[in-house]
Amino acid sequence: MQTQQTTERIVIVGGGFGGLEVAKRLQRAKAAITLIDRRNFHLFQPLLYQVATGALSPANIAAPLRAILKKNKNVQVILGEVTDIDAANRRVILTDGEEIPYDTLVLAAGVRPHYFGHESWEAHAPGLKTIEDATRIRARVLYAFEAAERESDAAERAKWLTFVVVGGGPTGVEMAGAIAEIARHTLKGNFRTIDPATARVLLAEGGERILPSYPPELSATAARALEKLGATPRVGTMVTEVTASAVTLKTGAGVEMIPTRNVIWSTGIKATPLADALQRATGVERDPAGRVIVQPDLTIAKYPNIFVIGDMAHCKGKEGKPLPGLCPVAQQQGRYVAGVIAARAAGTSEAKPFHYFDKGTMATIGRAAAVVDLRVIHFTGFLGWLVWLFVHLMTLVRFQNRILVFMQWGWSYLTRNRAARLITGDVGLSPESAGVRHEG
Amino acid sequence: MQTQQTTERIVIVGGGFGGLEVAKRLQRAKAAITLIDRRNFHLFQPLLYQVATGALSPANIAAPLRAILKKNKNVQVILGEVTDIDAANRRVILTDGEEIPYDTLVLAAGVRPHYFGHESWEAHAPGLKTIEDATRIRARVLYAFEAAERESDAAERAKWLTFVVVGGGPTGVEMAGAIAEIARHTLKGNFRTIDPATARVLLAEGGERILPSYPPELSATAARALEKLGATPRVGTMVTEVTASAVTLKTGAGVEMIPTRNVIWSTGIKATPLADALQRATGVERDPAGRVIVQPDLTIAKYPNIFVIGDMAHCKGKEGKPLPGLCPVAQQQGRYVAGVIAARAAGTSEAKPFHYFDKGTMATIGRAAAVVDLRVIHFTGFLGWLVWLFVHLMTLVRFQNRILVFMQWGWSYLTRNRAARLITGDVGLSPESAGVRHEG
Repeated sequence: MQTQQTTERIVIVGGGFGGLEVAKRLQRAKAAITLIDRRNFHLFQPLLYQVATGALSPANIAAPLRAILKKNKNVQVILGEVTDIDAANRRVILTDGEEIPYDTLVLAAGVRPHYFGHESWEAHAPGLKTIEDATRIRARVLYAFEAAERESDAAERAKWLTFVVVGGGPTGVEMAGAIAEIARHTLKGNFRTIDPATARVLLAEGGERILPSYPPELSATAARALEKLGATPRVGTMVTEVTASAVTLKTGAGVEMIPTRNVIWSTGIKATPLADALQRATGVERDPAGRVIVQPDLTIAKYPNIFVIGDMAHCKGKEGKPLPGLCPVAQQQGRYVAGVIAARAAGTSEAKPFHYFDKGTMATIGRAAAVVDLRVIHFTGFLGWLVWLFVHLMTLVRFQNRILVFMQWGWSYLTRNRAARLITGDVGLSPESAGVRHEG
Repeated sequence: MQTQQTTERIVIVGGGFGGLEVAKRLQRAKAAITLIDRRNFHLFQPLLYQVATGALSPANIAAPLRAILKKNKNVQVILGEVTDIDAANRRVILTDGEEIPYDTLVLAAGVRPHYFGHESWEAHAPGLKTIEDATRIRARVLYAFEAAERESDAAERAKWLTFVVVGGGPTGVEMAGAIAEIARHTLKGNFRTIDPATARVLLAEGGERILPSYPPELSATAARALEKLGATPRVGTMVTEVTASAVTLKTGAGVEMIPTRNVIWSTGIKATPLADALQRATGVERDPAGRVIVQPDLTIAKYPNIFVIGDMAHCKGKEGKPLPGLCPVAQQQGRYVAGVIAARAAGTSEAKPFHYFDKGTMATIGRAAAVVDLRVIHFTGFLGWLVWLFVHLMTLVRFQNRILVFMQWGWSYLTRNRAARLITGDVGLSPESAGVRHEG
């Protein structure tokens, strides 16, 4: 009889909504839990666009993982990046070569923006997934107005004052609305040679309406709200080329090249290299976006001790379509996985399949408007915004962040100002050092 | 009769306390004012150490220059860097080659850290002058604890858990106090293999007491307060070598090598390259730190239309010693210069020499203690901290920042927590990418 290894070793990769939920729910488990993340903080991604548009500071939407898990004495947090998985010997390998053994592995490493084979576009059209992405986009958006102020050539100036957001999902809608608001309101009276309100903000969506996953009437409301703010939704519009100074849009009517120095990418997701590593190690199937196809119990085929959850997982929902990449999905999956692990430890096998309880979705448009789809009821406009505001404040991880965010929103609402209009980082005076590359 | 050029062209380089004051005070002047800064924001440098130690977010101590000067319709703000001065033809030249003509030039470009010929130390011992410096130091300090948590070798772990702050002026005292507090309180219970409270925090000062510009009894109070927090002041101590893994300290008693991966430089200042450019253009004299030696009216010899103010200027005070690099000095100089410019425009020549009215100095030590020297009266301890807090809050440029900073201080006071404990930027998992270089 072997009794040496009595405590189950659980390794969780990723401290986002999914991974963190697993760790928290296993607070009472007799397990040695290791949570590995490349960052020392949990990020509240739904508000990342507010950092990218200067409304909030990075720290307002980030909470140190160690602080969150301070009282979870069975959790060891490790700042590190998993680069490989040895499924046969049950260990994960970190960048620096360290090997961490597991009995149960939970992968929740999220996704990155996807450029569908046009990786060169990334330099000109940054995506929004990390704090650094957000501060970089913030610097570029603000720098565009600075560059326009100093540009004497009208055509060049127009390039700086044209913003194209690619992808009409919630993030794209929120980005376009916020940029329009910055141009029309926040920067009003701040410049001497340009009028920021003349900026063009386009939102290009490939489908036939923006917010394609929402009910059609909410898409229509959102489109009207965007237009009122001064942003123009362009539906049925595909991007066929992105360079440093133009984006080419293709519609049924033809092809149009729009000169612009500001393209923001908010369409398409791709699994992180960790999903490749998992496939190499286990032969697991993946979808075209690279997401790992999971079993009904969120484990992968042939490896009942490996769970994949959150954006990284392709988990089929009701009509066979994969569940969307939303916080509630990841959180519910985290809770479910914690339950399965606890049940197994208690000797109760046979888990019921994971079921996603869809409470609805919501998106803001500019200052005081939102569309909220709670399935049984919809809210729009100011009332929608209040619902959106309440739900997001309550979901923020730390109490102090709730207060700080609430205050800054209140302030922005009253003054249309934005607290964090900083051009920081590797930024200076030439477009190159601002991360905005010239062509040729 | 020539009437073409009637409006005086005033160019101000630098949007710190000095430059901004000139621009603001000339609000009613019939002048075309151009304010040039490399950044789009005014930075409240006295609180920069709080960003470096995770207590505040960068945006809390920064205010967009355009927003501050929104109503000053005679001011044009330009995001740019002046690289050269053509004093004969009265123009400044920007990085991108643009030339901006002036009738009157005000230089207020500040200083950078000075390594006294040991420029290689900078990589291991970063200074604290910019927002980027602050977030980089924050990442390094927090990363040190993360690295220690993963380090199994005791000697290596001790290197990560040893912090040496070089320079016992207000910034050095404040940094050492804040790091000690992070180690002893903020991170308590956050780690599983190390006890952050075992961290060593040394403050090395070359002179015979810390805060050498303060009255001796306040230096003694500050030293005691630091020791109570767990930081050790070492006076009469010179740094003779800094590498990636050690710092060598020399005292009267001998030489000691202290293994450490965390050295923070807060001693010595050096004028920016703009002072070199001014010397090339005008032959002006400079002091050993490169600061420009100014006349009693803050102009430079032979160029009555060129003013130099703030940290960049070597302006003699009462006992012939240069005035210290403090906000009140820069602000009072800015106000004085605006007055001289206005008087000249009105035809009143002959300015009285600039006189600095010294209201005192203050520094915090950790959570709720400060030393305040108001010349006629001293405050220490909690009362000192309240005075420090009030003065700093009131000096912050925007009302919203005052509220946000006040709230975060209140929160930190109650919980000993720090809102902005983020490791961001070019940081990751290896010491290299965290900006912490290994030797060899």
